Amino acid sequence: MLAHPALDDIRLEHVLHALSDPIRLRIVRQMAVASAGLACSYFELPVAKSTLTHHFRVLRESGVIHQIYRGTAKLNELRADDLEKLFPGLLDSVLRAAGEEAARLPGPRPAR
Amino acid sequence: MLAHPALDDIRLEHVLHALSDPIRLRIVRQMAVASAGLACSYFELPVAKSTLTHHFRVLRESGVIHQIYRGTAKLNELRADDLEKLFPGLLDSVLRAAGEEAARLPGPRPAR
Repeated sequence: MLAHPALDDIRLEHVLHALSDPIRLRIVRQMAVASAGLACSYFELPVAKSTLTHHFRVLRESGVIHQIYRGTAKLNELRADDLEKLFPGLLDSVLRAAGEEAARLPGPRPAR
Repeated sequence: MLAHPALDDIRLEHVLHALSDPIRLRIVRQMAVASAGLACSYFELPVAKSTLTHHFRVLRESGVIHQIYRGTAKLNELRADDLEKLFPGLLDSVLRAAGEEAARLPGPRPAR
């Protein structure tokens, strides 16, 4: 059982910090378009596995994502409803801004 | 002359990082309701002057605020229009969320 902050314990500054890292932003953007929980192994990102685990922990402990064990895998889901309740419009504006920035800037992946 | 990022050089992750600190959030909230540039000495915050200078620098270098010298004082203004252009709705949702969180939580200052 992994520790998650209750709704009342989620803090804006922790959420903003969690979202202020480019790798974590990419994770959150991918979750935002997923219809179900995603395993950590789903995410192909240019970082070591231990680093990825750290990023998921920051996202969970700040209240941005929910992680549950399914067998030995962790499934990850955005706490979009909780965040919307606490900070209306925030996640949407961050996701939109992140999408536009990714389109505007040369990314680390080859084009197409 | 203080260095400021040009509009195209402002990055979402740097802005979110700048906003992810409670002291910097309080500074930004005060600037948001000010009609003109505010001197650093305007802000009464429970931190040392050197710490405050650091916070203003983080805000400036991320593109959140504009600082200009007026004599020996620095005047500070939010780059609200620039941020709105780059990240529509983001600053507003952060300011609203920060205001609600400040009202919801027991603050460091005495009530009233």
